[in-house]
Amino acid sequence: MVKFVSFTHDNAAKFGLWSDDGLIDLTGFEGHSALRQVIEAGALKALAQAGMGRPAKIPHEDAILEIPVRDPEKIICVGVNFPDRNAEYKDGQEAPGRPSLFIRFARSFVGHGSALVRPPESEQLDYEGEVTIVIGKGGRRIAREDAYDHIAAITLCNEGTVRDWVRHAKFNVTQGKNWDQSGSIGPWLVPFTHPSQLDDIALETRVNGEVRQKDRTGRMLYDFRYIVNYVSTFTTLVPGDVIVCGTPTGAGARFDPPIWLKPGDVIEVEAEGIGVLRNTVVDE
Amino acid sequence: MVKFVSFTHDNAAKFGLWSDDGLIDLTGFEGHSALRQVIEAGALKALAQAGMGRPAKIPHEDAILEIPVRDPEKIICVGVNFPDRNAEYKDGQEAPGRPSLFIRFARSFVGHGSALVRPPESEQLDYEGEVTIVIGKGGRRIAREDAYDHIAAITLCNEGTVRDWVRHAKFNVTQGKNWDQSGSIGPWLVPFTHPSQLDDIALETRVNGEVRQKDRTGRMLYDFRYIVNYVSTFTTLVPGDVIVCGTPTGAGARFDPPIWLKPGDVIEVEAEGIGVLRNTVVDE
Repeated sequence: MVKFVSFTHDNAAKFGLWSDDGLIDLTGFEGHSALRQVIEAGALKALAQAGMGRPAKIPHEDAILEIPVRDPEKIICVGVNFPDRNAEYKDGQEAPGRPSLFIRFARSFVGHGSALVRPPESEQLDYEGEVTIVIGKGGRRIAREDAYDHIAAITLCNEGTVRDWVRHAKFNVTQGKNWDQSGSIGPWLVPFTHPSQLDDIALETRVNGEVRQKDRTGRMLYDFRYIVNYVSTFTTLVPGDVIVCGTPTGAGARFDPPIWLKPGDVIEVEAEGIGVLRNTVVDE
Repeated sequence: MVKFVSFTHDNAAKFGLWSDDGLIDLTGFEGHSALRQVIEAGALKALAQAGMGRPAKIPHEDAILEIPVRDPEKIICVGVNFPDRNAEYKDGQEAPGRPSLFIRFARSFVGHGSALVRPPESEQLDYEGEVTIVIGKGGRRIAREDAYDHIAAITLCNEGTVRDWVRHAKFNVTQGKNWDQSGSIGPWLVPFTHPSQLDDIALETRVNGEVRQKDRTGRMLYDFRYIVNYVSTFTTLVPGDVIVCGTPTGAGARFDPPIWLKPGDVIEVEAEGIGVLRNTVVDE
C-alpha cells in the first residue's frame, strides 16, 4: 500500500513516501514543494512511481509527521453522521434533515505521533475518530454518481474537541472545534482507487487500548458520495480540500460521568485499509 | 484617508492605494506580492508613504476590486452581536453567554463593485452589514487591553447569507454562510491608528437607497477588544486574519414576509470613517 506523507526533517518541510524502513524524501518532485501541489497537478500516481525502489534514507524517528495536506484551502467536518450520535447531544432537537457541517483551521491539527494539546482553559478534551477524504479533482455541484472520481486519497482524523467550548454560544461548535493542536490528521494519505476503500470499512477508536468507538462507514447517515455532492452545491471544492466525514457514537462525552482525555493517554484511530493514527496528550 | 486596495488589472493580481483620481499600483513594494504579506511585514505605513504623491495611473473603471486580504488564513464571523438580534432567530433559545462564531471561506466573498451571486438553489439571499477588522500583529490569548495593538486595519463586510441553508442542520450556519460569491468585503482597508475608529461608529445598510440596518458599534454586545481576546484564546491569530464583527437588526429575514435580495438590487454598507461597500446582485 502506497502511503504519502508530509513531514518535517532537519527543520525543513518535506513530503514523500512512508515505508516500513523509513521515509523516502521526494520533496521537489516535478517542481512541487508540497503534497497539495502534487494533488493539484494530478500527480499522486506519478509520485508513487517515482518513489518505488528508492531507499528510505530517513529513519522514522528523525521525522515529525505533519498533517498530510499542510495548508488546504478548506477543512470541512461533518457532524452527527452515525446512528445514535444525535441523541448524544442531549439538546432535545430532532435529528436534522441534512448533514451538520462545521469548519476547522489547519492549525487545530497535529500529525501522527505528535501530542494533542490540552489547554489550561478546559479539562474537557475529547476524541472523535473519523474517516477523511481529500479532494483530487475540484468542482461545483458534483453529482453523487461522479463523487468518487473527485476523491484523490483517504486518511484518518482524530477530530479532537474541547467539549465545554462547543456549547458556548448559538452557532455553537466553532470555538470548541478549533483549539490549536487539539486534533490530528494522518498518519498518511492512501490513494483512493476503488469504491471498496470507502463504502463499508471498519472504523475504531481506542484510548489506552480500550475500544471506545467502533462502527462501519456503511452505516453513515450521509455517505461519502452524498457529502461531496452536498458540500459542492454551495462551495467550489478544490484539489487538496479535506472533508472529515463524521464519528461513530462513543466519544468521552457519552459516558456518565464523562471521561475526558488526560496527559499521557494514547488515542488510536484505526480504519481498514488506511492504518492507525496514534497520538498522545500533553498539557499546554 | 489612506485606502489600501487589492485589485485585478490586466488579468493580474495587484495591490496599492485608492485615490479619487484612480488606483496607484504598488505591487511588488519591498518584494511583496500581496497585501497580506505587507501586513505580515508590518509595512502598511511604509506602503502608504511609498504611494504618496505618485500618480494614479489606473482608472477606477479599469480595475476590479478584490477582497482586501485575498487569501487570509482565517475569516471568523461573530453572530448575534447587536441588541435584538437573538430574537430574530425565533428559535426560542435564550441569548447565549458567549459570542457565536462561524467561519467563512474567502471564496464566499467578492470585492466592492462586483455582484453578489444568487444561486438557483435558493431565493433567500440576504444582506448583513458589518464592521470588519484585520489583524496586524498575531498572538494567542491577547489581553483585552492589548487587543487594539493587534488590529492593523478596518474594513466593511456584507456578510451575505442564503437563509434557508442556514437552517439545514444542527451546527447550522456553515452552509448558508459559504455560498460562493454570496457576500462582499471592502471597499478598502483603512489603517487602524486610534480607538475612536472602532469604539462607537455609525453602521448602516441600505438596499436600493432604503435604510434597513442602522446602529452604532458602541451597542455591540461583545466589543472589538473582547472579540480579539476571546477568539485568540483558542486559536493563534496571525497577520491578515479577518474578523467580521456582527450585524445590527434589520436583515431581510426580519420582515414579515421576508424581503430577499433579487437581481438588480443595490446594497450599500456604510460606516463612519471607513466608507461605502456597494454591490449589486445577479442570478447565477
